[in-house]
Amino acid sequence: MAKKQFKKGTMIYPLPAVMVSCGEDISEANIITIGWTGTICSEPPMCYISVRKTRHSYDIIKRTGCFVINLTTEKLAKETDWCGVKSGRDYNKFIETGLTPQKAPHINTWMIMESPLSIECEVVNIQELGSHDMFVAKVVGVNADERFIDKKTGEFDLKKAGLISYCHGKYYALGEQLGFFGFSVQKKK
Amino acid sequence: MAKKQFKKGTMIYPLPAVMVSCGEDISEANIITIGWTGTICSEPPMCYISVRKTRHSYDIIKRTGCFVINLTTEKLAKETDWCGVKSGRDYNKFIETGLTPQKAPHINTWMIMESPLSIECEVVNIQELGSHDMFVAKVVGVNADERFIDKKTGEFDLKKAGLISYCHGKYYALGEQLGFFGFSVQKKK
Repeated sequence: MAKKQFKKGTMIYPLPAVMVSCGEDISEANIITIGWTGTICSEPPMCYISVRKTRHSYDIIKRTGCFVINLTTEKLAKETDWCGVKSGRDYNKFIETGLTPQKAPHINTWMIMESPLSIECEVVNIQELGSHDMFVAKVVGVNADERFIDKKTGEFDLKKAGLISYCHGKYYALGEQLGFFGFSVQKKK
Repeated sequence: MAKKQFKKGTMIYPLPAVMVSCGEDISEANIITIGWTGTICSEPPMCYISVRKTRHSYDIIKRTGCFVINLTTEKLAKETDWCGVKSGRDYNKFIETGLTPQKAPHINTWMIMESPLSIECEVVNIQELGSHDMFVAKVVGVNADERFIDKKTGEFDLKKAGLISYCHGKYYALGEQLGFFGFSVQKKK
């Protein structure tokens, strides 16, 4: 298990691959795929996305102060990749991908109907870091595809939704379940 | 695909489940499992961890200004869970889990030898958000298990390392590869 010093970089994986939607008017509505995202606080629920200043969505989110994090799935893998490679300056991404814009209930922007879970976010501050700026945001709404909400428990079934992760240039499906939080101390019945 | 408003919360998944090691002296060395982590900037490479003020590691990292993010694997799933459930106030986690502390090359703390990839981090600032404080950090070193470095390409093989992800209370292995960054626009040969 000898460790070798490796090139300095950002090697925290697996990460979520999410489609962030933004823009006020439908003509402005855009989608950008992002891996530099995550939860930063449980209560109040807060998250972040990091975006390069050169990206088309950067100015839109900075001006409008809101965006939606749409989780993506195996079925949406191709659209997810495409929205990360192409620019909203050159394409209307909703039209090109066939994804359906749906008005967000709490903020003045669009969510992606085909995403199983759309998280509405309001920007709290923008931090300049270098190649990327970090948009720190509050979660102001969560919208879930009813088909994945367990009728008994009321829980959202993320495994059934077929979520994908991003790992150093590759997309993966979720694999086998290895345990649940606390399984290492569970008493045998 | 009707969407229902769901309880407001932090539903960005899948996330990495990492073991963060910290502490200067070996007697202080501790491990805390964290899901609220990610990359926030590519150049310079920067990342974050969010930690509750009540956690034993909180004061250690605040005082020492450094920590290591150790990626975890299927083989380490049980240790990963245990270090998230138990407190360093009550246990010496290295001794209890049998994980091996190894001096970090660039900062005055310990990394976990059994982790395939250990990322050395220096705290830049601490942001109070609510339940959690966010430690914003610079990556100052990356240490990779040689066995997972491809001899031809020099790339680190994260899939071979058997990484795991954390999804709303459950741990999953990486599943099938669905594509690579740019696959949606690849020209057929």
